[in-house]
Amino acid sequence: MATRGVAGKESGTKHELTEADQGGFYFTYGPYADPRLKIDPGDTVVIETQDAFGGAIRSESDKPTEKTNHPYLNPQSGPVFVKGAKKGDCLAVHIKAVETRGPQPAGTTCLIPEFGGLVGTAATATLNAPLPERVKKVVIDEEGVHWDDLVLPYEPFIGTIGISPEIEAISSLQPDYHGGNMDLPDVRPGAIIYLPVQVDGALLYVGDCHATQGDGELTGVAMEQAATVTLTVDLIKDWGFGWPRLETEDFIMTIGSARPMEDAARIAYRELTRWMAADYGFEELDAYMLLGQVGRVRLGNMVDPKYTMGASILKKYLGG
Amino acid sequence: MATRGVAGKESGTKHELTEADQGGFYFTYGPYADPRLKIDPGDTVVIETQDAFGGAIRSESDKPTEKTNHPYLNPQSGPVFVKGAKKGDCLAVHIKAVETRGPQPAGTTCLIPEFGGLVGTAATATLNAPLPERVKKVVIDEEGVHWDDLVLPYEPFIGTIGISPEIEAISSLQPDYHGGNMDLPDVRPGAIIYLPVQVDGALLYVGDCHATQGDGELTGVAMEQAATVTLTVDLIKDWGFGWPRLETEDFIMTIGSARPMEDAARIAYRELTRWMAADYGFEELDAYMLLGQVGRVRLGNMVDPKYTMGASILKKYLGG
Amino acid sequence: MATRGVAGKESGTKHELTEADQGGFYFTYGPYADPRLKIDPGDTVVIETQDAFGGAIRSESDKPTEKTNHPYLNPQSGPVFVKGAKKGDCLAVHIKAVETRGPQPAGTTCLIPEFGGLVGTAATATLNAPLPERVKKVVIDEEGVHWDDLVLPYEPFIGTIGISPEIEAISSLQPDYHGGNMDLPDVRPGAIIYLPVQVDGALLYVGDCHATQGDGELTGVAMEQAATVTLTVDLIKDWGFGWPRLETEDFIMTIGSARPMEDAARIAYRELTRWMAADYGFEELDAYMLLGQVGRVRLGNMVDPKYTMGASILKKYLGG
Amino acid sequence: MATRGVAGKESGTKHELTEADQGGFYFTYGPYADPRLKIDPGDTVVIETQDAFGGAIRSESDKPTEKTNHPYLNPQSGPVFVKGAKKGDCLAVHIKAVETRGPQPAGTTCLIPEFGGLVGTAATATLNAPLPERVKKVVIDEEGVHWDDLVLPYEPFIGTIGISPEIEAISSLQPDYHGGNMDLPDVRPGAIIYLPVQVDGALLYVGDCHATQGDGELTGVAMEQAATVTLTVDLIKDWGFGWPRLETEDFIMTIGSARPMEDAARIAYRELTRWMAADYGFEELDAYMLLGQVGRVRLGNMVDPKYTMGASILKKYLGG
Repeated sequence: MATRGVAGKESGTKHELTEADQGGFYFTYGPYADPRLKIDPGDTVVIETQDAFGGAIRSESDKPTEKTNHPYLNPQSGPVFVKGAKKGDCLAVHIKAVETRGPQPAGTTCLIPEFGGLVGTAATATLNAPLPERVKKVVIDEEGVHWDDLVLPYEPFIGTIGISPEIEAISSLQPDYHGGNMDLPDVRPGAIIYLPVQVDGALLYVGDCHATQGDGELTGVAMEQAATVTLTVDLIKDWGFGWPRLETEDFIMTIGSARPMEDAARIAYRELTRWMAADYGFEELDAYMLLGQVGRVRLGNMVDPKYTMGASILKKYLGG
Repeated sequence: MATRGVAGKESGTKHELTEADQGGFYFTYGPYADPRLKIDPGDTVVIETQDAFGGAIRSESDKPTEKTNHPYLNPQSGPVFVKGAKKGDCLAVHIKAVETRGPQPAGTTCLIPEFGGLVGTAATATLNAPLPERVKKVVIDEEGVHWDDLVLPYEPFIGTIGISPEIEAISSLQPDYHGGNMDLPDVRPGAIIYLPVQVDGALLYVGDCHATQGDGELTGVAMEQAATVTLTVDLIKDWGFGWPRLETEDFIMTIGSARPMEDAARIAYRELTRWMAADYGFEELDAYMLLGQVGRVRLGNMVDPKYTMGASILKKYLGG
Repeated sequence: MATRGVAGKESGTKHELTEADQGGFYFTYGPYADPRLKIDPGDTVVIETQDAFGGAIRSESDKPTEKTNHPYLNPQSGPVFVKGAKKGDCLAVHIKAVETRGPQPAGTTCLIPEFGGLVGTAATATLNAPLPERVKKVVIDEEGVHWDDLVLPYEPFIGTIGISPEIEAISSLQPDYHGGNMDLPDVRPGAIIYLPVQVDGALLYVGDCHATQGDGELTGVAMEQAATVTLTVDLIKDWGFGWPRLETEDFIMTIGSARPMEDAARIAYRELTRWMAADYGFEELDAYMLLGQVGRVRLGNMVDPKYTMGASILKKYLGG
Repeated sequence: MATRGVAGKESGTKHELTEADQGGFYFTYGPYADPRLKIDPGDTVVIETQDAFGGAIRSESDKPTEKTNHPYLNPQSGPVFVKGAKKGDCLAVHIKAVETRGPQPAGTTCLIPEFGGLVGTAATATLNAPLPERVKKVVIDEEGVHWDDLVLPYEPFIGTIGISPEIEAISSLQPDYHGGNMDLPDVRPGAIIYLPVQVDGALLYVGDCHATQGDGELTGVAMEQAATVTLTVDLIKDWGFGWPRLETEDFIMTIGSARPMEDAARIAYRELTRWMAADYGFEELDAYMLLGQVGRVRLGNMVDPKYTMGASILKKYLGG
């Protein structure tokens, strides 16, 4: 994987970006922020992230609507400036680890009025009364995520990661072509996420780690946790494309975010078709027909301002 | 699984419904057809199905638009009348086997103009020129599905299955509350599909078997095949619900079909929440919150008149 | 208008189809019904229709959920068999009058749980509690529609009209390529609606008249009324197209029904582009560009199983 | 109208903001820009705007893809800082005039590949070949818009207008809660648009005037023109709401922007229901039911990153 990077297999410097280093967190992905760290391609960064509520929900008697203040939700660490990155390049971010941090119970999930997959929302606007607020705080330890009598598997991933758009400052609640709040469980340790650079230095942001999450993040809130994230960041020159891509040992994936949901699927599959054509020797319609037989789709979120889907194909079908 | 049926574990009579027995195939799911077979709950039926093109596409030089005649697409076998079935009951169809039949190359897939996930269609109407037609015929044998140099796994399932609506006759191209053209790979051997009975005798139809298919059936055409389907059909009295359900050894699933795609996800997840509340002891909002952490979504089709999604939860999370 | 018909300007026989003649009403549009009347092209039919509830909601203390029985909603009069009509022809239905009938208060509207534009529904499935049921009965007379202290204009139209599909029996609650429950206020006296014939005799159905309605039929229920509908029905041979069309003195309109709503708009505008190209001498892309400047869109319903939009252009821009 | 403003009926100072004064134009709506002008409530501003292409398309042989440079499209004049405006207030912008400026042919429209209502796009991603590029330049004078042999009416309006979000910088190609690229023909001379202030000074931006446009802006490009816009800007303290509102002599309107399109309709109608309840004495469900009978919907655009719809009710139905 990722042998095209500037750094190649050279291991670079290791940097830390603690909560104290960070100072103010960001709530948009944009070029108007001051970089918190400058690194070289190949360097590793260990970043402390807050949970999506900035740690404000501390007990099950807290009310999310009282403890949070829109639009100051989903705080992001960074941005990290990557030297040499230019528009048209690709940032290759190898996710090394996502570790729970902070006091127990470390996991927070909740019901927020007019937010979630099975309720009327700000966009799917209804006159129905909202559901009640409800908070659940759970212990996350080496056994897993303790949910009442159940132990759910600890399957951590990064809910929100991406680079700066060229001129927009996009809310950290939203996923789009720049990455952002994709809430896609495949963005997990072991994977490399490829992000299309739009500005000098790329400006990498990260936050919103989840200890576990179901497909679609049904309630709009996964098992939110503060985390320590370890990333090795490389740069691939002159590899431009429209939407985030991802690679693991077994598969390659393209990620689309849109409403309605079918457009997220269309974007993801078109990007995958194009990737197969550009880098794996397929004629475009052959790729399309093969994906009809073996393509796979993962629903990231069905709750954010855009819905996110990943389309993938196993590497064993890519030949070579 | 399915111990609530009228037949219980009694094994019933075995029936055959060959292509010759069938005579005319049906192209709608409705109450206006003559049953081809009457069975008792617990009986097993072995049914010959045609492929989605009624076998009309025989070589790679055939043009789908010339060989097919809308709306006479996706021929269905049956209907099978199940004695004792009444509105408000549930038909429990245990899928025992789906076996390829007919001469090689037994598998057919193709590109059909203005049909598929990455093209303008009859509904997503555009002025762009359509893609070219293209047919691919492949050998399906004990090794798998032979696709150029690749061997794809043989993972057969039933693309279209369901019961008759009360008064509608719904095109066999469409999935809905009655089942129909769901194109969901989980409807495969080993699974039980639960269908909400609307009319006396239920009137079970089946057709459109696939040798393999990717999530979403991207091109609108999977690896289509004529098949021999073996089903054991039981009846659960007074178990009514809105949409098809499915059960395997490991999980329970609810199936929604709608446009836009998010509505398919909403239907599926709401039905699953309700099922967990009705039969597994969950308070509804607890079920909702747990699905936010461990719910799973499978995209059946993104190409039919309604899109289909299955939402599921592993049985291990459903408690004692 | 409509000079291409078989009957031309000849005035034909006048027929009546009263509620008593009708006997059982129909709740699907399909070929499985017995014609109630056979007419020649050019004939006029005066048809009594029931309101969408079959008259079952008689007072403001009635509960819709108790008085109605799904799927037996939206009763349709007919079908009327038009001699000589074949697949590929067009039925041209000139709407002459829509008159309120029955005892006062003649108008009924209501709130139905999980149905309407601003509530969670069967398709946009939510866990929110439904709104309360509520019925409003109003007097409709020569002054207009008496709504509390307001008098709303009497602007009657036909909510549901269409022809039989070839093999489907489509619920009378649904609009589609065959017409049906479009709830489009332009289907009113003075207009000609063009319907693409699918079966011998066309099989014309009609029902669901509204005394007035806002764009989108927001609550899912307009000012429902029993009515006497006068139609002159002509036949245009060999004029086939995909979706209903409409013509008034001032404009031509094409009607699309789909979800999501943008697909209804796409269908309607593509059909209009094609109509302008086929019959008004436009090059297709010129028609497209002109519609960008002067096209008009009317939202029929945003509540039915498919949403309906009409796209139109004033005749003064069509040249000639 | 608008008697609640700080300035009341006092007429304020008149300011000019010419293209030369403007210097650099903006391509996002955000708080990161320097105000070009500071005014008091009640003041009038006369602003020169560029067309959506920044004037770059000068002849019918120009290729839009060669002359434009994404994301530097749809240049905006301003921002104008309004003294005293705070989050929670409302900016009331009375549109006095929209006048064509610049050399003839002053109007530009075109086809842009993968952009428009009847083509595959960046979001509704397809593999179909794009339509050809095409440019049309037309004279706009006192007679109207000269389109081949037709003269279309000059019905100018402001395509893009709004205030700064609190922390986001939203592309000027996108409409949202802050206004922006709504492309709604009702935003025309005579109307007052109400915009919910998010930041100190409100930061009013304006651009993208159209000489005429059809409902939905079907091709994605209306009759684009450089213009001189005259606005009188007042401030209403402590009137906060979610989405832009509009008022004319005859009606009040609320404006929603979303995908899928039904969500734009839902937002617009919910906001209208709430406005009727808050300011016109309606009980919410009574407002909802009345809108079912007399509500009106205007489709602004069906082509931008979010679709825009206005829902309105005539003032005569709003009571005393």
